[in-house]
Amino acid sequence: MSLTPEQLQEIDALRANQQPTCRVTVPALEAILYQAVPLLDHGFVRVIDYMGDDGAIVQAARVSYGKGTQKTREDQGLINYLMRHRHTTPFEMCEIKFHIKLPIFVARQWIRHRMASVNEYSARYSILDREFYVPTPEQLGTQSSANRQGRGDVLEGEEAARVQQLLREDSERAYAHYTQMMNTDEEGNVLDPARSGLARELARMNLSLNFYTQWYWKIDLHNLMHFISLRADPHAQYEIRVYADVLLDTLKHWVPMTHAAFLQYRMGSVHLSAEGMRVVRRMLAGEKPTQEETGLSAREWRELMAVLEENGEDA
Amino acid sequence: MSLTPEQLQEIDALRANQQPTCRVTVPALEAILYQAVPLLDHGFVRVIDYMGDDGAIVQAARVSYGKGTQKTREDQGLINYLMRHRHTTPFEMCEIKFHIKLPIFVARQWIRHRMASVNEYSARYSILDREFYVPTPEQLGTQSSANRQGRGDVLEGEEAARVQQLLREDSERAYAHYTQMMNTDEEGNVLDPARSGLARELARMNLSLNFYTQWYWKIDLHNLMHFISLRADPHAQYEIRVYADVLLDTLKHWVPMTHAAFLQYRMGSVHLSAEGMRVVRRMLAGEKPTQEETGLSAREWRELMAVLEENGEDA
Amino acid sequence: MSLTPEQLQEIDALRANQQPTCRVTVPALEAILYQAVPLLDHGFVRVIDYMGDDGAIVQAARVSYGKGTQKTREDQGLINYLMRHRHTTPFEMCEIKFHIKLPIFVARQWIRHRMASVNEYSARYSILDREFYVPTPEQLGTQSSANRQGRGDVLEGEEAARVQQLLREDSERAYAHYTQMMNTDEEGNVLDPARSGLARELARMNLSLNFYTQWYWKIDLHNLMHFISLRADPHAQYEIRVYADVLLDTLKHWVPMTHAAFLQYRMGSVHLSAEGMRVVRRMLAGEKPTQEETGLSAREWRELMAVLEENGEDA
Amino acid sequence: MSLTPEQLQEIDALRANQQPTCRVTVPALEAILYQAVPLLDHGFVRVIDYMGDDGAIVQAARVSYGKGTQKTREDQGLINYLMRHRHTTPFEMCEIKFHIKLPIFVARQWIRHRMASVNEYSARYSILDREFYVPTPEQLGTQSSANRQGRGDVLEGEEAARVQQLLREDSERAYAHYTQMMNTDEEGNVLDPARSGLARELARMNLSLNFYTQWYWKIDLHNLMHFISLRADPHAQYEIRVYADVLLDTLKHWVPMTHAAFLQYRMGSVHLSAEGMRVVRRMLAGEKPTQEETGLSAREWRELMAVLEENGEDA
Repeated sequence: MSLTPEQLQEIDALRANQQPTCRVTVPALEAILYQAVPLLDHGFVRVIDYMGDDGAIVQAARVSYGKGTQKTREDQGLINYLMRHRHTTPFEMCEIKFHIKLPIFVARQWIRHRMASVNEYSARYSILDREFYVPTPEQLGTQSSANRQGRGDVLEGEEAARVQQLLREDSERAYAHYTQMMNTDEEGNVLDPARSGLARELARMNLSLNFYTQWYWKIDLHNLMHFISLRADPHAQYEIRVYADVLLDTLKHWVPMTHAAFLQYRMGSVHLSAEGMRVVRRMLAGEKPTQEETGLSAREWRELMAVLEENGEDA
Repeated sequence: MSLTPEQLQEIDALRANQQPTCRVTVPALEAILYQAVPLLDHGFVRVIDYMGDDGAIVQAARVSYGKGTQKTREDQGLINYLMRHRHTTPFEMCEIKFHIKLPIFVARQWIRHRMASVNEYSARYSILDREFYVPTPEQLGTQSSANRQGRGDVLEGEEAARVQQLLREDSERAYAHYTQMMNTDEEGNVLDPARSGLARELARMNLSLNFYTQWYWKIDLHNLMHFISLRADPHAQYEIRVYADVLLDTLKHWVPMTHAAFLQYRMGSVHLSAEGMRVVRRMLAGEKPTQEETGLSAREWRELMAVLEENGEDA
Repeated sequence: MSLTPEQLQEIDALRANQQPTCRVTVPALEAILYQAVPLLDHGFVRVIDYMGDDGAIVQAARVSYGKGTQKTREDQGLINYLMRHRHTTPFEMCEIKFHIKLPIFVARQWIRHRMASVNEYSARYSILDREFYVPTPEQLGTQSSANRQGRGDVLEGEEAARVQQLLREDSERAYAHYTQMMNTDEEGNVLDPARSGLARELARMNLSLNFYTQWYWKIDLHNLMHFISLRADPHAQYEIRVYADVLLDTLKHWVPMTHAAFLQYRMGSVHLSAEGMRVVRRMLAGEKPTQEETGLSAREWRELMAVLEENGEDA
Repeated sequence: MSLTPEQLQEIDALRANQQPTCRVTVPALEAILYQAVPLLDHGFVRVIDYMGDDGAIVQAARVSYGKGTQKTREDQGLINYLMRHRHTTPFEMCEIKFHIKLPIFVARQWIRHRMASVNEYSARYSILDREFYVPTPEQLGTQSSANRQGRGDVLEGEEAARVQQLLREDSERAYAHYTQMMNTDEEGNVLDPARSGLARELARMNLSLNFYTQWYWKIDLHNLMHFISLRADPHAQYEIRVYADVLLDTLKHWVPMTHAAFLQYRMGSVHLSAEGMRVVRRMLAGEKPTQEETGLSAREWRELMAVLEENGEDA
């Protein structure tokens, strides 16, 4: 992991400095505040701040529904109800802020989620660290033939080693030329006082997409769950999925009731099309429909059968 | 003010219940947390939760600009710089949540600010309180002739009394018919067990726009300042301006450096058009331009002269 | 319906004035452009402008997926794929603008959809028309006991007549006092030159929530479908549902392939929770699970059984 | 410029295919529709579709202000008024869609503008072209000492040639390794049938930030002007500024009145702080204030003096 010694020291200081508050506080999240969870070869995720808890969601929902529902539901039931019926605004009442270090190609996917606030390290102002991602051999998948955007089997050992070497060498060279063009070392110290260096905003273009960047990322709970549901999905690229998995784990510490409802009604749920539902009804009535009889495409049929035959170990 | 005794009791309990946190904490804001500031005849604003402080803005900016600016500016200077140069994302890193009670016609203006989260009391689920806004005589302005959307002088005493009476009588009658149609009292108790009541979602349409509603409103600091800059403006309607003024005052407790920069570079600042600036340059060069010589409309000229002649007591 | 004769004349002129364009054009939507579909007693919806068609969605998706998918799918299949897998950005590439007249209490629900642009008639500047909504007897439902936010049976005839009369009388009186306080007639002509009128921004607060307002509403296709999926839902209030139904019908003219996919994979689809799916699998395996054996609440069980037993006439 | 022959042919076909519409149409924009404006060494901007014109802004504003302003202002005056008083929603009523080819490091700045819709070419699905940006010698600026994020003088000739060579060689090598790892050529044809290729989603990480990507970008006029005001600013990086300049030029074809107002009240306007305004007033009164006497920082003072002394050739 790539926190500097100064950052680690600062984390200790922040964690030691407790103050009284009458705001809603979540001890299970306080327990991990500021601490970095390492990811990939140089990345991390850490929670920097938060606002609200499961109770804040319930409270906001009860402002909405007023006296009417004040006594009738206990909290988990109400949260389940909100999740099932897509009442999203109460979940917007909770907010969380992360500090994240991630490869640029992951950052490029991530930033497509617009409903969040970001402050990214700027390579116009400052020099990027000599840190780049090289996948482990287990992650060096071949182009999938079934799925145009995904990976199939992993490369063979020799091939994998060669890919790792190419990535490593090209990244090292790119970084060396990056600093050389700027006429500085990694710390920004001038190398050759007799000549001028290229502007940082230009030199950075020589770095490749596996270099690490970092940012502060602030988002509300509703939009965070939307992000997780898309990026912790098996179709998401592995390198962003590992981040989404850590975010999902954070939910468990922060808002355990919402986390449970999210697994039950979102992550583990199944969406059936109108036609897919008709097929299920026929099967329940004892019929044995075939794909050709239905309006489902071959792919939809395959996906439907897979969902119906799962052994319940899923989700 | 219209907090119920139960709410007042709950506030005391919340304020008494201090817990330790290692999050950023702002004692000056903690001092007023949960407490309601009364507004108009039944409205209020109270802070329910918050995240971040001036330091969080500085910290986010420094992630962006990296090592480059780490030592060179002190905090107020950096915040001023961010405010002057419209670097808005660091201000998005702070978040605040309010509980607000306000007349429906004010809520209708308010909700046009889309970059916020809202949970409003629902009159589909629950019965609205018998609370409606009647302006004081000092606020009963006549239609302005200079400004199509504003108010001029106040009505004469007798006229004002008549308007107050009309508003009060119509509101009382509307509420009486509202509950009568639902066949309930204000608490939702059935009046005549022999008959059914109209659905709440329908009966509510008989209430007028001066009835009070309430909501939880959560917004980041950047968007909050945008809201305040538009709604604390002298052109805003008085009834929303008083709310914006309370929000502005909250900034002073929460983020005093940002509050100072906001007054200096936003609320008290002046925006001059290209042509307006040319006029100022000519005046500084000793010329005495007239409106006709310039590209300014009569109204623009009037506004420019007003701005140039102010005696500095402004802002 | 409440278009003025001037507006009707203007519509004819606009429809007669055809110009050549090399933009994407949809004849089936051109055929209804500017024309108002009447709704409720004074409302309407009309399409004012649009951008894009089914082909524009396909084109945007193909920019995303590049050469890879250029030849492999025909258009309906690709649109179905995008809809099923929640690839939402291609649908954002189409935009539509409506002119809508609607009761204020409907407008208050509507405006909660933040991802749209709105210009509403301002009662600060201008005088609202004497138009208010009074439900027909068939719509005068009682408060539902099963569903806290909904309607049950309709009121009995005598009761319904009484409710209609109350609404009508209160609205007429509110409007009369509205103009009386402003000292104008509906056209803004001063009534008594000897006295000043109350400012419009104040007088409007005497109007009730069933008065009509109007606005221009511009939204992209992705967000429009989200709006429709929530507001054409049987749980939505009747008075907004009739608008959502017209919007859904507009889709059929504008983007017929997307409309078909939307019905198949969104409006007519079913969302099953992880536990609900386990129940279905057990039933397909010939078991006869009871609610008590599962993790489903009584309500979830009831809803699941209803979905499984539907006779296919749905959607 | 890097349109393929197929794309150029398609453009001709699209431009030849005129159809009648009764939508608002802008002949000056139709005249350039689909045509690409070349930028940098391989980039371009082209307008793909649009909705609305200056008249649509006026129309939306008049819906808002109602009968009140119907006759009183001519169109340019109303648009100027809206621009000066930050009435932004009428400008949201116009929408435009671009096809843009741009270096990845420019795309990374661009995408920070969240209020737009984007479909980007996906390097998970498809293979990127062998196209990368190498600045011309006139653009190879040194790191500015005055401005931490900007460029100073250009590099000397020999130095510049060396930088160009480094960028070119590293990019060529990165691309060669990219295809080699995938075991394909640029067209996706398998090179060595005996071995598997690395997944595209992984191989792409070897490409550097000067490679070109492309996207469809759709935005409303209000947010487009916000983008331009930030990115056509002299402080913006040259490589994004050239794009913003083309966008600004598009405004002139599309909405000439709004373009004029935008130059007058936004691009060419000056924002003076409360204290800056006090200084101007003192100068107009014949005083000669010095920086030390005021609350302005040295930098603010310098910027103020620069603005006051400009010779009017600006904007």
